[in-house]
Amino acid sequence: MLTNRRTIRIEWGDCDPAGIVYFPRYIEYLDACTVHLFEAAGLPKQAMLKQFEMAGFPMVDLKARFLIPSRFTDDVVVESTVSEWKRSSFVVHHRLLRGEDLAVEAFETRVWSVYDAASPGGLKSCPVPDEVKARFNQA
Amino acid sequence: MLTNRRTIRIEWGDCDPAGIVYFPRYIEYLDACTVHLFEAAGLPKQAMLKQFEMAGFPMVDLKARFLIPSRFTDDVVVESTVSEWKRSSFVVHHRLLRGEDLAVEAFETRVWSVYDAASPGGLKSCPVPDEVKARFNQA
Amino acid sequence: MLTNRRTIRIEWGDCDPAGIVYFPRYIEYLDACTVHLFEAAGLPKQAMLKQFEMAGFPMVDLKARFLIPSRFTDDVVVESTVSEWKRSSFVVHHRLLRGEDLAVEAFETRVWSVYDAASPGGLKSCPVPDEVKARFNQA
Amino acid sequence: MLTNRRTIRIEWGDCDPAGIVYFPRYIEYLDACTVHLFEAAGLPKQAMLKQFEMAGFPMVDLKARFLIPSRFTDDVVVESTVSEWKRSSFVVHHRLLRGEDLAVEAFETRVWSVYDAASPGGLKSCPVPDEVKARFNQA
Repeated sequence: MLTNRRTIRIEWGDCDPAGIVYFPRYIEYLDACTVHLFEAAGLPKQAMLKQFEMAGFPMVDLKARFLIPSRFTDDVVVESTVSEWKRSSFVVHHRLLRGEDLAVEAFETRVWSVYDAASPGGLKSCPVPDEVKARFNQA
Repeated sequence: MLTNRRTIRIEWGDCDPAGIVYFPRYIEYLDACTVHLFEAAGLPKQAMLKQFEMAGFPMVDLKARFLIPSRFTDDVVVESTVSEWKRSSFVVHHRLLRGEDLAVEAFETRVWSVYDAASPGGLKSCPVPDEVKARFNQA
Repeated sequence: MLTNRRTIRIEWGDCDPAGIVYFPRYIEYLDACTVHLFEAAGLPKQAMLKQFEMAGFPMVDLKARFLIPSRFTDDVVVESTVSEWKRSSFVVHHRLLRGEDLAVEAFETRVWSVYDAASPGGLKSCPVPDEVKARFNQA
Repeated sequence: MLTNRRTIRIEWGDCDPAGIVYFPRYIEYLDACTVHLFEAAGLPKQAMLKQFEMAGFPMVDLKARFLIPSRFTDDVVVESTVSEWKRSSFVVHHRLLRGEDLAVEAFETRVWSVYDAASPGGLKSCPVPDEVKARFNQA
């Protein structure tokens, strides 16, 4: 299965008064890494929004472990892959590495969503298009 | 056990191009709610940093479910409580409600930490002071 | 002219490794204060988006002075007012106070905007509706 | 004078419900660009914090113009330079380009600061070390 790797620089503004990454920033990094994973599969999000009339793939379940703190000016690497495809959802597995060490690990369950005015929040789930899954298998 | 309730207004800048809360913002809301929970127990974080020479209570494990999206100008209520005390860590349980409905639920495992130059990230865990636990039981 | 006052609690996650507010967070606070100012004038942004088919009032010019740092757990007060109405734009003046002292002062020039697919960024300016200005004068 | 160029990808989470960059995110981008400018001059911020016992260079005056909106997945380039050195402060000039077009321009006045418990906010200004200025002239 396709795995995408990105290097992320920890910026001053991502760190808290204890001098370490304010942990919600990791969650933002990983969200962007999911977009970049799809892009690496030939599926830029901007194009998917149009082609599939999708609204996005909102998070429904997030599990994250924070093993080692990171500090300002660290360079970390995130390895991202889709670990499971379900009918209307999928799981993205992220491993954030500080050198050789696993610093943060997360599993994101996301739902393929389209706009639907009648649903709460204006969104409803929808099966993941086969073409999307195929791109990951081909990669 | 002490439960703290806070009302949070969803701001424009917390929402994404799909018009719903960008989910890492929820994680920020809940982090602030944990601080306010301690404050409701008579333990303002600023005072704890000095009194206990703590560095903070970094997140080590986060589990969150996102059930209903929230939109710009929604008012949501967060109910927060410590659901478990361990030796050097504790679990905070948050329920974010949109009207009567559970919109987000999360469990944060946090470690009581002090500065330690020899440890990776400059922090090490330390037993939660009895006085801290007692404050929650008295409340 | 209508002036709106809001109290803002400085949260841990808004502060940087120097222990003071990471200054872009002030810019976020003030943006929310502008929305609350309109709401105080009887013009909630969500309703304006529908009633006037507006896309928002993007910032075109920002001037800010940062006079006194603020720290975690400070409560600050922001006083906001529209200091000038132009044809398609307006200036919001914010004074962020720490106790009696002016800590941050900013002038935001914003343009009343509607969606327009042909314009760069998909937005174009449009005269501020008279009804909007009238609300501020009545208040 | 040394000019540093950085390419920044606009991420989904940096954009608002109007589909354009939430403008305080630009202010964060530019703050990071200032750090990278110093790094390009051979002055990584982490090293400066130790070598000069500085606390940072907090913003005291910010002027920004937002000329063209940017959208999700745009790549923008930021050109940053120190346009003026004063005794204890300096001005950083940023030009954020979308293709050939100037999209955002900003001038940041920052104060070289050290920790000082007696000052409000715990910081006081201090002359910019000659070695720092020299690095920019040599570059």
